[in-house]
Parts: sequence; C-alpha cells; structure tokens
Amino acid sequence: MSANSPGPLVGIVMGSRSDWDTMQPAAERLAALGVPHEVRVVSAHRTPDAMFDYAEQAQARGLRAIIAGAGGAAHLPGMLAAKTAVPVLGVPVQSKALNGLDSLLSIVQMPAGVPVATFAIGRAGAANAALFAAAMLGDQPHIARALADFRARQTEEVARNDDPRIDTPPTGFA
Amino acid sequence: MSANSPGPLVGIVMGSRSDWDTMQPAAERLAALGVPHEVRVVSAHRTPDAMFDYAEQAQARGLRAIIAGAGGAAHLPGMLAAKTAVPVLGVPVQSKALNGLDSLLSIVQMPAGVPVATFAIGRAGAANAALFAAAMLGDQPHIARALADFRARQTEEVARNDDPRIDTPPTGFA
Amino acid sequence: MSANSPGPLVGIVMGSRSDWDTMQPAAERLAALGVPHEVRVVSAHRTPDAMFDYAEQAQARGLRAIIAGAGGAAHLPGMLAAKTAVPVLGVPVQSKALNGLDSLLSIVQMPAGVPVATFAIGRAGAANAALFAAAMLGDQPHIARALADFRARQTEEVARNDDPRIDTPPTGFA
Amino acid sequence: MSANSPGPLVGIVMGSRSDWDTMQPAAERLAALGVPHEVRVVSAHRTPDAMFDYAEQAQARGLRAIIAGAGGAAHLPGMLAAKTAVPVLGVPVQSKALNGLDSLLSIVQMPAGVPVATFAIGRAGAANAALFAAAMLGDQPHIARALADFRARQTEEVARNDDPRIDTPPTGFA
Amino acid sequence: MSANSPGPLVGIVMGSRSDWDTMQPAAERLAALGVPHEVRVVSAHRTPDAMFDYAEQAQARGLRAIIAGAGGAAHLPGMLAAKTAVPVLGVPVQSKALNGLDSLLSIVQMPAGVPVATFAIGRAGAANAALFAAAMLGDQPHIARALADFRARQTEEVARNDDPRIDTPPTGFA
Amino acid sequence: MSANSPGPLVGIVMGSRSDWDTMQPAAERLAALGVPHEVRVVSAHRTPDAMFDYAEQAQARGLRAIIAGAGGAAHLPGMLAAKTAVPVLGVPVQSKALNGLDSLLSIVQMPAGVPVATFAIGRAGAANAALFAAAMLGDQPHIARALADFRARQTEEVARNDDPRIDTPPTGFA
Amino acid sequence: MSANSPGPLVGIVMGSRSDWDTMQPAAERLAALGVPHEVRVVSAHRTPDAMFDYAEQAQARGLRAIIAGAGGAAHLPGMLAAKTAVPVLGVPVQSKALNGLDSLLSIVQMPAGVPVATFAIGRAGAANAALFAAAMLGDQPHIARALADFRARQTEEVARNDDPRIDTPPTGFA
Amino acid sequence: MSANSPGPLVGIVMGSRSDWDTMQPAAERLAALGVPHEVRVVSAHRTPDAMFDYAEQAQARGLRAIIAGAGGAAHLPGMLAAKTAVPVLGVPVQSKALNGLDSLLSIVQMPAGVPVATFAIGRAGAANAALFAAAMLGDQPHIARALADFRARQTEEVARNDDPRIDTPPTGFA
Repeated sequence: MSANSPGPLVGIVMGSRSDWDTMQPAAERLAALGVPHEVRVVSAHRTPDAMFDYAEQAQARGLRAIIAGAGGAAHLPGMLAAKTAVPVLGVPVQSKALNGLDSLLSIVQMPAGVPVATFAIGRAGAANAALFAAAMLGDQPHIARALADFRARQTEEVARNDDPRIDTPPTGFA
Repeated sequence: MSANSPGPLVGIVMGSRSDWDTMQPAAERLAALGVPHEVRVVSAHRTPDAMFDYAEQAQARGLRAIIAGAGGAAHLPGMLAAKTAVPVLGVPVQSKALNGLDSLLSIVQMPAGVPVATFAIGRAGAANAALFAAAMLGDQPHIARALADFRARQTEEVARNDDPRIDTPPTGFA
Repeated sequence: MSANSPGPLVGIVMGSRSDWDTMQPAAERLAALGVPHEVRVVSAHRTPDAMFDYAEQAQARGLRAIIAGAGGAAHLPGMLAAKTAVPVLGVPVQSKALNGLDSLLSIVQMPAGVPVATFAIGRAGAANAALFAAAMLGDQPHIARALADFRARQTEEVARNDDPRIDTPPTGFA
Repeated sequence: MSANSPGPLVGIVMGSRSDWDTMQPAAERLAALGVPHEVRVVSAHRTPDAMFDYAEQAQARGLRAIIAGAGGAAHLPGMLAAKTAVPVLGVPVQSKALNGLDSLLSIVQMPAGVPVATFAIGRAGAANAALFAAAMLGDQPHIARALADFRARQTEEVARNDDPRIDTPPTGFA
Repeated sequence: MSANSPGPLVGIVMGSRSDWDTMQPAAERLAALGVPHEVRVVSAHRTPDAMFDYAEQAQARGLRAIIAGAGGAAHLPGMLAAKTAVPVLGVPVQSKALNGLDSLLSIVQMPAGVPVATFAIGRAGAANAALFAAAMLGDQPHIARALADFRARQTEEVARNDDPRIDTPPTGFA
Repeated sequence: MSANSPGPLVGIVMGSRSDWDTMQPAAERLAALGVPHEVRVVSAHRTPDAMFDYAEQAQARGLRAIIAGAGGAAHLPGMLAAKTAVPVLGVPVQSKALNGLDSLLSIVQMPAGVPVATFAIGRAGAANAALFAAAMLGDQPHIARALADFRARQTEEVARNDDPRIDTPPTGFA
Repeated sequence: MSANSPGPLVGIVMGSRSDWDTMQPAAERLAALGVPHEVRVVSAHRTPDAMFDYAEQAQARGLRAIIAGAGGAAHLPGMLAAKTAVPVLGVPVQSKALNGLDSLLSIVQMPAGVPVATFAIGRAGAANAALFAAAMLGDQPHIARALADFRARQTEEVARNDDPRIDTPPTGFA
Repeated sequence: MSANSPGPLVGIVMGSRSDWDTMQPAAERLAALGVPHEVRVVSAHRTPDAMFDYAEQAQARGLRAIIAGAGGAAHLPGMLAAKTAVPVLGVPVQSKALNGLDSLLSIVQMPAGVPVATFAIGRAGAANAALFAAAMLGDQPHIARALADFRARQTEEVARNDDPRIDTPPTGFA
C-alpha cells in the first residue's frame, strides 16, 4: 500500500483461516465495489487481547464498519461490538453439527444495548454484509455509484434468466 | 404457440434458475396432465417490479393458479399473493444451511388475510402443487379425467410393489 | 335447510370439538363471504370409518374444498386427501408441548402424489384457508366480488392505521 | 409356505419400497429370533383402502404386532392403529429435508386414545421395533429364549470391545 | 392388598413426585380397564441402585410392562430397558425450558439393541402408554373386552360431537 | 412539523399496529438519542403498493435507515430492501406459535444480493436496531455524542449493579 | 469478611441482576456445602473491560472455579474462559423468545481449544454447576463430606417419595 | 504398565467403538498434556452392570475425572454421574439423523442434583473435555505447565495466521 493510498474503511475479521471460505465473498464484493478494506484473523477465544486491541483501535484507524464471521458459539461479532462504536456486521459461519443454527443464534440474539447487525448463514450472508457495509458508505459517491450499478446488473441478470427455454410445454400443447 | 392455442392456466415462477431442479416436477406433472402452463424466473428481491407486474397481470392473462418456489427467506409466494386474486401455491426450496426449514416457515406462516397454500419442502412439494393446481381446474373435463387416471395408476403401482419377494422369512420358516 | 337452499360448497372438518377455537375463523370468514359451508367433527384416529365415508361422499355431495384442522400427529387432512379428489386445505392446530410444529410438519410434509395445501399454525391459518377456498370458487361471481371487497377493505384498514399518532417524535423535534 | 406352517405373528408394513432400506433390520432381526412375520407394501396415502383392509384383518389373521415404517408426514402407523386392536409399532423413516424429525413427530405425537409405540429414526428404530415385538411374544418359549440369547451376546460383544488396544497412553507413560 | 389378590401386571414408574401430574392418566386408564398395576417413584439419577433393583425383579414379580415417565435428560425408561426383559414404555414429561423436546429425544432415540416404546409428550402419552400396555395383555379376556369397550365408546363420543350446532351458516343461508 | 424542522432520518415501519409493542423501544431509543424519525404502519402483504411507494421515496425523502419489524412469514424488511438503496434493519417480532423463530428466519436468511441487517427477536432487537441506526449516523456529531453517552451510562449502570448485596455467603463464612 | 476468613473459591458471575433468579440456586447450594464464594454482576457486552479484569485476576485471587450465567447470545462464560486458566462452568439462562435454546448453544458449542463446562438451562443448571464446582474441590475434606451428605440425603428423599399413597388401584382390585 | 507407573487420572469412556473417531481428540490431548488416562468401552444400555462397576470403582482407583461420550439417547454420562462422586464430563457424539442435537439434550439437560459438565457436539467437545479435565488437575505442576504452554502456543498460532496474504485488496487499490 503506498503512503497516499487510503486506509481501509471496512475490516473483515474471522476467528480462523478455516472461515475464509465463508468470508471470501465479502472481500470480493467489497473489492468489486471499490471499498478499501482489510482482512484479519483475530479470535475472540484464542486471541482475546488482540481482539480487544483491534476493536479499540478501529475507530481511530478510520474503519467505518467491521464484518465479523464466526461459527458455533460465535462470540467474535458481539465482543467486537462491546468494545467499539464502529458498527459491527455479523456473519454466522455454517457449523458442522448444527448447520449454523448455533452460529446464527449466538450472533443475532444480542441483549439490548449492544447491537450486531446479522446476516444469513454462510457465503450469502458474507456477500450481503459487504453490500450493507457499502450502503453505509453511501456518502462516498463512487461507492454509491458502484452499488447502484451492481443492483442494476443483478436485476438485469435475473431478467435475462426469465426466458422460455426452460419451459416444458404440456404434451400436445403447441 | 399458435394463435389458437390456449394460454397458460398455471404459472410456475421461481426466483432463480437454480430453483429449477426443485420446480421441474411441477412442470412435468402439469405437462403429463395436459394443463397449459408457463415457467418464469421472477425474483421478489432482485426483480421486485417484474414480480409485481406478473402478479398484477395474472388474472387478466387467464391464470387460474400460480405455483411459486423459493428458498431461504422465501418471499416470492407471499408477495405474489399480496398482489393478485389468483390463488398462489408455495413450494419451499431446500436451502443449504437449514435444509428448507427457513423456506417452509417463510412461506407457510402468512398472517391472516393473504393466504398461500403451502406444500412440502423440495421436489415432492413441487409435484404436489401441480396436482393441487390440476384439481382446482376440475371444471375442465380432460384435466379431471387425467388426474383421476394418475391417481388410479399411482394406487396400482403401490399395489404392484406389495409383493412377497422382499419378504425375508425367518430361519426354519417354510 | 330448506329444500331449495344450496348445499355446502366447503366442508370444515376437525377431529375434536377442542379444535373449534382454532377453526372458528374459517367458518366466520366463509360466512362473511357468502360461501355455503358445513362444519363437521370427524376424527382420523377415533372415527376412521366416518372419515373415509365423509371423504368418499365429498365430491358427489358437491363439495369443492375441504378445510381440515388437526393438531399433534395431525393425520386428518392427509387421510381425507388420500380418499377424495376434492382439494384438501390443512390447518395445523397449535399443540400444547410443541406449539404446533408437530402439527405443521405432519400436514405439510406429504409425499409426492397426494397434496394437502397447508396454511399457518392456528387461527390465522384457518382464516386463510377460508380465503383460499373462496378464491377457488372464483367462478361464482358473488363470491369473487365478496372476496375482492374483503381485500379492498383490508387494505384500507391498514392504511387507516398508518397515522402519525403512534409516532413519538424525538426530544426537541417539532 | 406349507399348509402346516404357522402364519405370521408380526407384520412389517411400509408405504413404499424405498423404505425397505430402513425397515430391513426389522425383518432380519425377527428372522434371527425365529419370529414368523410378513413384509408388506401398503400406503396410507396411495392405497388407503388396502391399508384399512390390512388393519381390519390383522387380528383375525393372527398378527400380534404390526411394525409400520413411514417418512415425512408419516400417517401409516397412526392410521393402522386407528383401525385395529393389534398393537402398532412405528418407525420414523429418515426424510430428505428434515432428517426424520417430521417423521418422528408425525408418528409419536398421537392424541390420547389411539397409541402408537414409537422407536428411533431410521434403521436402529426398525431393529428395536423388532426386538420389542419379540418381547411382546414372550409367551412363546423359543422366542423368549432367542431374545435372551441375543441380549447376552450383545453384552458380550461390547465387553469384548472394551480392550486396551484403542488406548493411547500419554507420552512417557509406561 | 389381600393375600389372594393378583400382583400388579404393569408398573408405572417416575423419577419424581412432580411427574405425577403427567403420569396420572396412565394409572387412571389402567384402573378403568381393570389392569392390576403399581405406581412407584424411582429415579435413574438419584436412586440408581433402587432403579436397577426394580428392573431386575420386574420379570420375577410378574410385571408384563413398565411405563416410565421422565423429563429433560430422561434416562429412566432406557436404563430400565437396559436391565430387564420386560417391555418398557416411555412417556416424555414436558420440561420447562424445552417443552419436552429434550425428554422426547432422550427417550426415543435409543441405539439398536435396547428398545423403548415411546409415546407422546405429556398426559396424552401417559394415557396412550396405558392403552398400549393393556393391548399387550390381550390374552386376558376381561382386559381385551374392556379395551374394546373403551374404543367403541371413544368412537361414539366423537360421533356425538359431530353435530351441526357448532355450524355457523353463512349470512342469508337457510 | 414546522417548515424548518429537519425531516426524519430514520423510518420505523411495521405491518400492523399490534407490532407497536415490539417496536416502541426503537422509537424511544431514537428519541432519546435525538435522531429525527417517523413511525409508519405499512404492510408488505396488505398494502404492498404503499410499501413499494414508501421504499421508492425513502432515499429522496432523506431517510438514512429504515427499521422494519415483522412477524411470522416476515416479508416487510426484505421487500423494502428489494426496492431501496437505503439500508434496511429488520426486527423479528415474536410470533404466537413459533416464538419468533419463523420471523427471524424469514428476515435473516436473505439470498445474496439484497441485504437486511437483522437484530434479535422482540423488543431487545428493536432497541438495538435503533442504536445501530444511530451509529450509522455517526457523521452527525450530536448523535455520535449521545450514543457515546448512552454507552457510558450503560456501562456504569451494570457496574453499579455489581454490588455484594446479592451475595449469600456460605454458612459459617464471615 | 474478617481478615482471617478464607477468600472465595468460587465466583458466581452474571451479566445482569435479572439473571439472579436463575443463579440463586448456585449460591444457595454452595452456601449449604460450605464453599466460600462470591457473587458478581459483570457483563461481557456492557462491561467488557471489567469482565477481562475479573478473568485476569481470578487465578491470583484464589478462585478454583467460575460459574457464569448468561442468556440469549450468551458470551460471558466463553469470554471468561478465553482469559483465564480457572475452569469456567456455564449456565444457560432461559431466554424469553427461544426458551434458552439460544443461550445453551451460545455456551456449549465452544470451538476446540477453550472449554466451557455447560449445564442445563435455568435453575437446575445453576444448582448443578454449584455441585460440580464443589466436586472439583474434593481435596478439601469438609466440602467432600458435605457433598457426600447431600447426595445421600437426596437419595433418601426420593426413596421416601416412593410410597404407595399415590397409587390408584384399579376398580375392584383389593 | 510397570508396577511404579502412576495409575490413570482420567477415564475416557464410550458406549461403542464407533464413538472412537469422536473421542480420539480427548485421548490425544490428554497424552500431549502428560495426563495419565485410560480408554474404555462401556455401554449404559448394553453393559449396564459393567458401567455401574466402573463408576463405583472410579474414585478408589484414583480417577479424578471421567470423560464420557455418547450419541442419540445418550445416557452414559448421566448414569456414570449418578453412581460416582468423580466429576463426569459429557461429550455429545454427532448422531446420524439429528446431528447430535439429541445427544446434546440427553446429556446437558440433567435434573438438579446430579451434574454432568457438557461440551460441544463432536470432536471439538472431546478435545475441550480433555482440556477441562487437565485444568481440574491444576494441582499437578507439570500438567498446569503443559496446559499453559498449550494455550500460549494456540494464541501464537492464531496470531501467525493473521497475516495479510489472505487479503484481497480491491481493484485499483494499492
């Protein structure tokens, strides 16, 4: 990163490299939208002090949102939210035994006072957290424009798929 | 479609081509029963205006039922039902993390006032939605007859399977 | 019923009088829409022969839809559907221990071949089953008109509720 | 079957040949214990009349127990129980989307008055239903003896497995 | 009990007096059917030795079935079944937090080899366990007769409830 | 509202007045933080056109966030998000039968492409949605300050509760 | 506390005074067993620094176990465990919407590396956490003795309840 | 084992060799930490007497903790706890149909009076049970030291993974 390049506006944080498969769509989506971001491996349970440091410095470092992915007893998003005023977006990672229901409930059921904005289990949730973070940065015209373009292309893509070739007309129906 | 061919009586709608694997049995069953139908890709979330247009024109276009498949936070059936007097039949698509429980609850738990007739998760539900739609068209003699034939053949098929070859008689039992 | 009165077009069936609290909205809604209907107590488990008789005679008696409510291991809707070509609409009654999740799954998860159109757990589901049944009778102009009126009034009622009196403006915001 | 051979004492019933993989352990276990039995394919939903006939004739045919397997909206065990005084044992077949939770609740949550003895989801449940049926036939000495032998062998087998070879002693621990 | 009175044929066992509210219908139903029975408080967790003693003596004492109720991590039915050849019928008691889903799964999901016949959560399950136990005693003519009478009365009772007075005829429908 | 007063920055939307009990903490919290907001009753299912209008005008009207509460098959947050670039925050309303699990899954499990930031079921979720919306408005100094004050007071309040008076020292422990 | 009194060996920690109703049995049980303990209100989300301080000082202060109760997205037990070598025992508090299933999964599904010993939802879990903590202190003879006495009394109490007065002998059975 | 070698301090117990895949991490972790342990196959249901013997002798044999893994209707941990004063740590084995939710609830929902410390479903739970057992043996300096070393290495490993190589900087962002 050159000296003049902007610092990251969004931090993508996960507790383990094994969560990268889930969180990659967040990074890809932010990249595609031109949102400066960083990706970090910080664990609520195994590196709690590093997690607290990350949260405490987030605002001063210029982060406008933190996207945190975690699975099972998923404490990372909530604990980051407990330590920073920067909005935290939580992504439940699909867990092995309970398919991410544990991850989802561990993230979304925060008590009143410390919010975590929660998205769907797995890669769709990661992609959507990135889109939401970009929408929060709507005061930056190039991001707002990129986001509008993305939405327009997405609409067109569905429309293109609405074509009669998958139709299976009934027998004798011509 | 020739100028004289009847227009579709049933619309099969899904939010994404990836739902086609689930919805195909609906189309096949309608075809086998001789019910004129169409298959469309319209997304509640990504092409909401196209979805509203589809719903608004459904009655005038002669549709007697709409079969809508959706997965996850499945809003397509309920939103179509909100916009048309044509009966809507919802098919929950099996989702990746939660196996379609999310799809099912998102479709079946409609508030009083706007009904969606809901069927089983996945391909069985799609097939049954088609059978139900055909039953709703019972005022058309050839459809009623095709449906009765289907039910009779289905009964015969189970009866044919009730044969002693899968029996495993106990040792010394002759 | 006088000799000239129309026979019922919709049958509301439940396994026990204790289900009446749940099913009452179905009867009330059909009454309000002018749909001739009957209410019967027939149990899949305790009067199986009566249930089979009811299903077998339904079509000849002129029924166009059967609304069946049941709770727990809810077999009534599916077994009626197994025995008649008349479309069956299932209403899961909220059960004591499992809150109707058992009722819902017992009704909606029908195997391919025998459809039951399923609605929400409890009174909302009963009301919606009635609305759906009325929509299936759209070939009768007075029912179609009554249904359209109901939908219009419902929309107006929500609109009337969208009034700023429940607003709590922020301090110093005038 | 020769004219002198005993008739079946236990009926194993399933709604579809695809349930055979689940129900096979029931047949194998009964065979191993010397319990005369039969295997039938009868569907609550697709051959309801055959199902009623089977249930109505069960007692007169000498059946002492019926083991019924079903999946999804599993109505077969409960409907057989509604039509016969012969005790019915239900086996929930593991379903595709909901892993048999739907099957289990559809079978076990019977209302007061018509019992179905329910066993575990899948093959373990089928095996156990057979063992339970054999225990119900304990008035037949050869079955009681075979069952006692089975239990003894089972205990020995676990004991044989309790051997230190799977131990992994800690480093430096000798 | 006089010296000549028959010993109990069915044992009703529960881990705590607080389970009595759930298990009472089992005792009442057995009493009504003339089945000699006993009621015992024996806890798998708090009196494990007494529980083992009870199970070990059950067969010699002439018990033909044991009905065991338990809630939460419900181990009583399965552990009794591990220690006796007498068939064990399990009744899941509705638990406070999880409404008996924990009780149900703890009882029904037994591994292959040691069956527990499981019934519905709560009082309906207790009543049905008693009916099932009575059906297992069908070799005693007075019990078989009492059971047949009960079933017949139950059918009549539902039939009596199937009366048009709960009908709410639509406006203008006479 | 006087001509000079600022327009609302946050819209609180719900489908029915009965959701007000759940959503009130959102309004109260925004008021306490000095965030101009409005409260609207708009239903995805009963006033779909009004809902689309609201979403389409949101950005031009200066809304920076929409907080949408809904229960059961909760489609309001997702459909608003489908129609506007303004970030949507979803609050699952606790439903009668399924305690809000249906509401939660209907809101949080959005497909990739259209994000809804989801919060806890019920009043805690509503309060947290308001706090999150305020955090998104951190570019307005008086809101950022009010939020920081709230967090500080909240921390103090817990600390004040950490007092030994609820301690129950063990017997003989002084 | 006098200068000579022993310091607490067990810390009972909860995030809010409203958890006291759940956690009280832990304190009562420890008191009855003569285990010196303290009760603290420390919140993972609202006083994260105080929580870290508590965990960091726990070992030096002589704590041998920490019992932590929390509800919803329950992060307190896991975060304490992340910061101390003192064993942490987690008690899921019954939550309003999801009955403590969220609390349970948030506590028990910890990733490998940072264990939390989890107990039942609600007051039973709190009592059991105290019993377990006492068992961990079995090197202190008076605690081991008190625990053995408790277990013996508990067994006696169940045995006392196993009395025939709750029996309801069948009609004509004397 | 030589005459002078220390006896095992921790017993790892499972009901079937098929649970070894789940329990192996417990043995490996104990071995790595230098904790003398043994591995046994003892079944609550198939060898109940051997299980009782094991529990009764545990304290006298010098065991300080028992780690018990079980799946489905998992009774092993609770029944061991019912018969010994040695603390029992339960590991829910992931079951086939219900993914271990049945195992978890069968183990964790113990009634007040007989605690089982429960860990996560599957191998992570087994590893954590071993770490927890080691922490309970903190009075043995070499175990405490090994545990501290493990925690430190674990923290370092996460920190090492927090490296920018998985970052995907946005296009044009340098």
